[in-house]
Amino acid sequence: MAGDPIGELVALFARLPGIGERTATRLAFFVLESPPELASGLGEALSKLHDRVKRCRTCGNFGADELCNICRDPRRDASIVCVVARVPDLVAIERSGAFRGRYHVLHGLLAPLDGIHPENLPIAELRERVEREGVRELVVATPLTVEGEATALYLADVFGDSGVEVTRIASGMPHGGELEFTDQVTLGRALAGRKKV
Amino acid sequence: MAGDPIGELVALFARLPGIGERTATRLAFFVLESPPELASGLGEALSKLHDRVKRCRTCGNFGADELCNICRDPRRDASIVCVVARVPDLVAIERSGAFRGRYHVLHGLLAPLDGIHPENLPIAELRERVEREGVRELVVATPLTVEGEATALYLADVFGDSGVEVTRIASGMPHGGELEFTDQVTLGRALAGRKKV
Repeated sequence: MAGDPIGELVALFARLPGIGERTATRLAFFVLESPPELASGLGEALSKLHDRVKRCRTCGNFGADELCNICRDPRRDASIVCVVARVPDLVAIERSGAFRGRYHVLHGLLAPLDGIHPENLPIAELRERVEREGVRELVVATPLTVEGEATALYLADVFGDSGVEVTRIASGMPHGGELEFTDQVTLGRALAGRKKV
Repeated sequence: MAGDPIGELVALFARLPGIGERTATRLAFFVLESPPELASGLGEALSKLHDRVKRCRTCGNFGADELCNICRDPRRDASIVCVVARVPDLVAIERSGAFRGRYHVLHGLLAPLDGIHPENLPIAELRERVEREGVRELVVATPLTVEGEATALYLADVFGDSGVEVTRIASGMPHGGELEFTDQVTLGRALAGRKKV
């Protein structure tokens, strides 16, 4: 006997988000019935992942080097910095093509009840960066949740008298949204934030 | 520069069934943001998968040894063998708890148009096994598809005059099925296969 290799793989797949035991079983058998290159390729990519991926020393974005692609790109506007909670949020903003500045990834949000206080987030680094790089505007793109809003308010407070402008991404109806199916908070914000046409 | 480790992992995840690029991206970031043990554990399980998993030399089931758990279990009835196309089908039957015999996994179905002929499936091995182990009944549990039915008919033909009884799993309404939403073929089979109450 040498353990239960399929069962172990199923249990590990089932730890991924959105993957239950049934899907995990299907994935395990798919890999097993595929040419071994898939399993070995995926195995190697995963095994080396944390060694190969580095956090950018300036902004916290993931990348293959000390400095991420965005911080290394001289065409990106260094005077405007978008603050995000997680790298996937940065990726989503990049996909929109609507932002040409740089980023600062907090890798978390303020959550005092979970023990996440300002000193647990790279906010001192952000302050230092604002001074060093002459940042004019911080666009706070944390999520529109309780913790995201609390973090945005905290940042506005911290940078309130530093001369840097702290802005917040707009809140309102999503593109293509139907009023009938929009929640009350979103509708209320959309009305409060109305603009002259 | 050292490649794009996250992009490579996303591309590999996206090769798994039911996982598109968006889900693959979410999985990659989840692994990246989890403790490294998840990535290394999954990486090792995948890298060693094909070395650790063996095909049972008797029935073709996957297992950690030369002989699978079922073929090694003396309480399983060796005189009745259930023929399945794939190991996940065997797993599903085992989960039902309705079968106490042994299995024969074809790892495929007859599909002449795709170049899969009888000699590409372990049918000679099955014939030899029937003789050697004194099998009395072959329960053909291939799927109720064109290829599954063709394979069942072929097996019935091959074993027609060998004294072994070849049976086919029943076709009819699934448990909990509503007549209103059942397809015509299934309804037709359910009617044709009706039994005295």
